[in-house]
Amino acid sequence: MNAGRTIEPTHRYRNNDKSVGIGNAFWDLSEENGLAGIVAELDDGVLRTGEGHTFVNFSCCSYLDLDSHPRVIEGAVEALRRYGVLDHCIPRSRVQIPALLELEHSLGELFSADVVSAISASAASAGLLPLIASGHVGDGERPLMIFDKNCHVSMAQTKPVCADETEVVTCRHHDLDFIEARCKEYSRVWYVCDGSDSLGGYAPVAELAALQDRYGLQVYYDDSHSLSAFGPRGVGYVRSVAPAANDRTVVVATLNKAFGTSGAAVLLDGHPKRTLRVIERFAGAMSYSQPLNTAAVGAGLASAEIHRSEELPALQKRLQEKIALFDAHVETAQSGSTFPIRLVPMDDEVVVEAGKRVFEAGFYVSPVFFPIVARGTAGLRVMMRAGQTDEQIRDLCSVLVEVGARPAPATRTEPGA
Amino acid sequence: MNAGRTIEPTHRYRNNDKSVGIGNAFWDLSEENGLAGIVAELDDGVLRTGEGHTFVNFSCCSYLDLDSHPRVIEGAVEALRRYGVLDHCIPRSRVQIPALLELEHSLGELFSADVVSAISASAASAGLLPLIASGHVGDGERPLMIFDKNCHVSMAQTKPVCADETEVVTCRHHDLDFIEARCKEYSRVWYVCDGSDSLGGYAPVAELAALQDRYGLQVYYDDSHSLSAFGPRGVGYVRSVAPAANDRTVVVATLNKAFGTSGAAVLLDGHPKRTLRVIERFAGAMSYSQPLNTAAVGAGLASAEIHRSEELPALQKRLQEKIALFDAHVETAQSGSTFPIRLVPMDDEVVVEAGKRVFEAGFYVSPVFFPIVARGTAGLRVMMRAGQTDEQIRDLCSVLVEVGARPAPATRTEPGA
Repeated sequence: MNAGRTIEPTHRYRNNDKSVGIGNAFWDLSEENGLAGIVAELDDGVLRTGEGHTFVNFSCCSYLDLDSHPRVIEGAVEALRRYGVLDHCIPRSRVQIPALLELEHSLGELFSADVVSAISASAASAGLLPLIASGHVGDGERPLMIFDKNCHVSMAQTKPVCADETEVVTCRHHDLDFIEARCKEYSRVWYVCDGSDSLGGYAPVAELAALQDRYGLQVYYDDSHSLSAFGPRGVGYVRSVAPAANDRTVVVATLNKAFGTSGAAVLLDGHPKRTLRVIERFAGAMSYSQPLNTAAVGAGLASAEIHRSEELPALQKRLQEKIALFDAHVETAQSGSTFPIRLVPMDDEVVVEAGKRVFEAGFYVSPVFFPIVARGTAGLRVMMRAGQTDEQIRDLCSVLVEVGARPAPATRTEPGA
Repeated sequence: MNAGRTIEPTHRYRNNDKSVGIGNAFWDLSEENGLAGIVAELDDGVLRTGEGHTFVNFSCCSYLDLDSHPRVIEGAVEALRRYGVLDHCIPRSRVQIPALLELEHSLGELFSADVVSAISASAASAGLLPLIASGHVGDGERPLMIFDKNCHVSMAQTKPVCADETEVVTCRHHDLDFIEARCKEYSRVWYVCDGSDSLGGYAPVAELAALQDRYGLQVYYDDSHSLSAFGPRGVGYVRSVAPAANDRTVVVATLNKAFGTSGAAVLLDGHPKRTLRVIERFAGAMSYSQPLNTAAVGAGLASAEIHRSEELPALQKRLQEKIALFDAHVETAQSGSTFPIRLVPMDDEVVVEAGKRVFEAGFYVSPVFFPIVARGTAGLRVMMRAGQTDEQIRDLCSVLVEVGARPAPATRTEPGA
């Protein structure tokens, strides 16, 4: 062992000392209090730990409960039997069995877009954003890339990679003025943000669409939290507000949340075939790594069929009723929104204890607190699903109020009441 | 539209203009000649295009044909039915069903290591390498990271990310002198390379182990091409040559090649539990994105059982016989190696036409040629599998010799002859 050189990190786009240092303290405290590191068997919508504690998961993103829909599971089984392999291992740019094409065709018809599949939204963003940076998904001109400060880590982590191909900046959350100013300065600007984010907000899609029309701004959205749960045929928030029909908008969305299966879909419009080929050949792991397996393809085909049926709007309606039922009992900043996530504010001093009491009462909600959020903004994150029963929701709300949540005003009544 | 600022890329660690520019010409020419963009149904080991052309795939990495093993497929089906979901969507650091743990426990016992699963080897490397860069997989000290010039793109693509956390350099292929010199200069050095690479070579694992013993060098290997195909219980080349028992070696390997399923395994030793927790919580997509689905878990459990049985060495033996049969007819630089990939040299002027003639004769091999390899080093890449018949191999070899491959010397006879 030598004394050796000391290395000073640049920390221009990331800082593990900070993120691991801060995050690990959060996770350790969560785990010490039994609110992380939980292992439980899922049975008929209820989770049971090895110690026999049963609880309802109010922190699961399967907003329509399609993940356990019998037709989705049988679709996976049927595809495994039909194709006889999980994957025929060779890059699809050389030889492919028709599995992915079948799913992409189905999703393309469902969402009225050119659809490219990926094994995850993270793999899609890691593959696409560098090609956007270098102008290869586009007309060859390098854009300024503006990353929203709050965009999901799956996109933010590509900043140092994109920054080796073009100029990268980070803007404040949804800072439309900043974006517009850059549009006046650069002939090509891409803005990268969540279409719907995990703490419950939608992007200002209409306002961004106005900038797209005026300046040719291009926007890359991750709309994972609203696909299936929102919009006609479950097309998601972004494309419900501003249906894309040109190459100025790219939407990436996981199929692992409300859609109920595995993988991700990239929704594109107006790109020539040569650009789609460039994506297939050069979009990082989308080109060289394993694709989603045939079980996921079969499940996806089955879920797409449910999306085409009357069952989807019925499930979306049921989800909205569950959300309204929650809002009728507990007040949050999100009350009244169609978005299925609520953050129930709690004092920093009590949030962990509150999470524990809620868990003991039979409900898992995710406590978020300093150091992963600023002091004074702690809370319990609650995710609603269509399959939760009214009784479960009322019981959860009672416990939440007991541990310090603010009751809803009397003017807000239960749906149908 | 504005005149706008012009952006000059830094191109320090990557250059899409070059890689897409060069690569696209290669792919376009391959596709124009019918050697890329092929869609075909797989039926009993033979592929059939929509136009009715049938061919045997000699460019598939499922070296033991476990991908279509009936017990692997039934394992996937059984897990789907047992768990009733493809994934219960919530970060595993919060709540998880036991699926991943079950697979990791089984693979850990099989390979005598601590095993962490990932959705792909690419996701594993993108998650782990930045934590290695910042010293969080380790004792906190930032290492010099040496990436092998030829290491797979799934590792090479993390260079700009790692470079924001520590010092990153690229060395010539397997440059042991360079690595040793850096070990004398820096107190912590990680070397990142393929354990077995897609053009048919093994890393100098024994020589690297000597540097590990002498200087504390740490090595990150992607051993995807040899897992299952090589070594006792299919532990792969790296751990067969230098069984790891401490934190100086990390092996990442896909489960999507010879293992026959989906996902990837990270094989670790000697890391304290808190480091494994840091990986679970902060290793990029391994922490926040979807895990491998239950179909992959069930298939993996079934494949692991096959690895524990007498069937695995029998399959490995059969693979070696197929390789020896090929070598008895066609001479390559790899002749005599246990590795299942052969590069049959061809002149630049004839390689595409040769690939076409081989394909027309009923065999898919991958042509590689300028501009993706240097002029004068073109060839047809052939991948052997245990499930190919002797007749298929002899017929392929006849066609290869017809199109210009060098026949094996008469001294090299068929196995058993």
